[in-house]
Amino acid sequence: MNRPPREIDLRIDARWVIAVEPGGVLERHALIVDDGRIVALCPQHDADAAFAAAARVACDEHVLIPGLVNAHTHAAMTLLRGVADDLPLDTWLERYIWPLEARYVSAEFVRDGVELAVAEMLCGGVTCFNDMYFFPDATAAACDAAGMRAMLGLPVLDFATAWAPDAEGCLQRGFEARDRWKHSALLVFALAPHAPYTVGDRTWGTIVTYARQLDLPIQTHVDETRLEVEKSLVATGETPLARLDRLGATGPGFIGIHCVHVDSAGIELLARQGCHVVHCPASNMKLASGVAPVAAMLDRGVNVALGTDGAASNNRLDLFSEMRLAGLLAKVVSGDAAALPAATLLHMATLGGARALGLDRSIGSLEVGKAADVVAVRFGDPETLPVFDPRAHLVHAAGREHVSDVWVAGRHLVNRGVLTTVDRGAVAARARSWQSRLR
Amino acid sequence: MNRPPREIDLRIDARWVIAVEPGGVLERHALIVDDGRIVALCPQHDADAAFAAAARVACDEHVLIPGLVNAHTHAAMTLLRGVADDLPLDTWLERYIWPLEARYVSAEFVRDGVELAVAEMLCGGVTCFNDMYFFPDATAAACDAAGMRAMLGLPVLDFATAWAPDAEGCLQRGFEARDRWKHSALLVFALAPHAPYTVGDRTWGTIVTYARQLDLPIQTHVDETRLEVEKSLVATGETPLARLDRLGATGPGFIGIHCVHVDSAGIELLARQGCHVVHCPASNMKLASGVAPVAAMLDRGVNVALGTDGAASNNRLDLFSEMRLAGLLAKVVSGDAAALPAATLLHMATLGGARALGLDRSIGSLEVGKAADVVAVRFGDPETLPVFDPRAHLVHAAGREHVSDVWVAGRHLVNRGVLTTVDRGAVAARARSWQSRLR
Repeated sequence: MNRPPREIDLRIDARWVIAVEPGGVLERHALIVDDGRIVALCPQHDADAAFAAAARVACDEHVLIPGLVNAHTHAAMTLLRGVADDLPLDTWLERYIWPLEARYVSAEFVRDGVELAVAEMLCGGVTCFNDMYFFPDATAAACDAAGMRAMLGLPVLDFATAWAPDAEGCLQRGFEARDRWKHSALLVFALAPHAPYTVGDRTWGTIVTYARQLDLPIQTHVDETRLEVEKSLVATGETPLARLDRLGATGPGFIGIHCVHVDSAGIELLARQGCHVVHCPASNMKLASGVAPVAAMLDRGVNVALGTDGAASNNRLDLFSEMRLAGLLAKVVSGDAAALPAATLLHMATLGGARALGLDRSIGSLEVGKAADVVAVRFGDPETLPVFDPRAHLVHAAGREHVSDVWVAGRHLVNRGVLTTVDRGAVAARARSWQSRLR
Repeated sequence: MNRPPREIDLRIDARWVIAVEPGGVLERHALIVDDGRIVALCPQHDADAAFAAAARVACDEHVLIPGLVNAHTHAAMTLLRGVADDLPLDTWLERYIWPLEARYVSAEFVRDGVELAVAEMLCGGVTCFNDMYFFPDATAAACDAAGMRAMLGLPVLDFATAWAPDAEGCLQRGFEARDRWKHSALLVFALAPHAPYTVGDRTWGTIVTYARQLDLPIQTHVDETRLEVEKSLVATGETPLARLDRLGATGPGFIGIHCVHVDSAGIELLARQGCHVVHCPASNMKLASGVAPVAAMLDRGVNVALGTDGAASNNRLDLFSEMRLAGLLAKVVSGDAAALPAATLLHMATLGGARALGLDRSIGSLEVGKAADVVAVRFGDPETLPVFDPRAHLVHAAGREHVSDVWVAGRHLVNRGVLTTVDRGAVAARARSWQSRLR
């Protein structure tokens, strides 16, 4: 008794805490952080005696949640936000996005675009994102400067891009980037073949070999549109997902992005192989790609994460919006108002994303021992009052604009709405400069 | 030449102006307001010589749009925001909402709830709403105090409520409220029978007679769920909408709320009679009611407005969110990424709403002679940069949190994010007090 309190770095007192794992809502708890990790989550009065905090943050009308994981984006494409809207995927990609990328994408473009994306995501409570884009070393540098956590997908395409002349060139440059950044505490890597229809069997074979040798996940857009599936069936007699399975790409390290047009055999395959799926409802709706069978995948035990896709097809990197859209869409297509309840949506946006990225031992929930990737959301404005169920409130009433504070690995990156590591004015100025050049 | 400049009340200089009617995007124009009305919309350099403004507001990185019209809500239900989520309409209504309303709804409840709703809506760029709720005199008082424009639907139900013992009582109390407020410049009235299934033929007959005699619109929830339509077909052999048509309720003064399950004959009926429809995508998705055939209705020439429904089934009174949802939903269900483009969505949220309420001669677009109901939306944050097409940007990238200034009839009700006529702190305190009572 009368043991002196333990000295720790940070104590956050919150009106509500949703740890995600375990489930439920805690009231008036304190989250205790030391050396970037969570060391306790306990009632506030218990914390008073046990801990002496170097810094203390009061979140008296806030809910504390794990940092949101944006499990699929092309961060640098924020610079192409709204450059072409109201178009189907093939036209949008072939007539607008690819020509613009061929002309403008460079290390500078990526660095500026990722800085803009990181500013947007941090302010919106996203503490980790899974990227797929050219010049991943520029992405790594921007994340490192901001203190943002990310998985960087090393892009692979069989044709020439601004990044590399072919698949071999993509892999070589990608591995160089990985070598430069692989010791960063906040960055992990994946192989990111763009899609079954842009990468041939031979390259898939090479990728599968590298993935096994280097223990890297594989992420790819797959079964996104009906046309993609139909073309694959005509060409190979298989769905794109089945083809990837035959080529050895599936498994617990496989992240299938979109999976809109998977049938029951496809869901079975995903479950059997322990694959992860990233659901991107806004992008799938906006490009009229279709509705992924999320409830069926979850029922079968498939881990489903949430992603925004790039800002050119969304046009926001906003996980709050994706949570709400995923829920509303699942309810209306199933005719079941109980489909995808709020707790499930928040799980998908946090621990589901962490699992997909292979990071669930270190992030995704507010459990002792995990990194302190934490978000405070304020429920004090007219539009967020009154509060009955903080989980439903997060999904259906609140938005990213109610995020007040964000920590990544215990570092306070958004402090009462103010970015601490990103120069917001400079980022905006560079975005405006690209606006003039791209117009 | 050298005519002295005309003295006017207000000049707003904006980077972009979307007048809605006529269409298109104007750059660097000035909106000139005098005595609460728009007197000019011209290039800024032309305005310099022509007008001497008593007040001038610079919106250098903003887009100016007409105030948004929330064409269907139950404003006071903000106090029931999130009280019961993830439930279908009948359970939600019968087991949660109606019992809570029976116990708690009073003039005080309505006044406090409407103040909260008005604070939320004004800050989100809504300058006019169409209400349907008990104690409309309390709603009128709250709108009058805030300077908010509204259409108040006088609610009619055939059974006893906290408001009146029966339909006759509803009408009598409703008309008393109208008599008290009908000379207010910002308030108009409608008859609001709750739904075909809560109001019998005899009461509908009375309502139709009153509507004709008093030249009042009729608004009602209709064809909202499949169950409602099926029950009506069993009971009467008609759809709810066809029944209302037989009873004489349809016509250019008829506002059909939801119209989710109208078939092609129903769309034909709406078009032939010149009826208006209010589409409430978030509510229809959340309650799993279904998807209204909005594109088909618009194609047939039916005027379609947008509404949030009440905060108990949404849970936000956010027209930006409804615009985006309506667009995303229409695209994905039709498989056509070009469905409901941004300009159409903005039209629905402004002039479409004004037409539905019979107010299109005075609001809904930034045309000379109309009331200065104006909203400035700031495109300066990372998440709203860069800007290529301000219309698509409004719908897909921006949100209500980017609204900086709002005028109703030329009165500056939101000034750089700050409410000028509503005491935000007092409103929040009252909402928290109801939270404790309702819990």
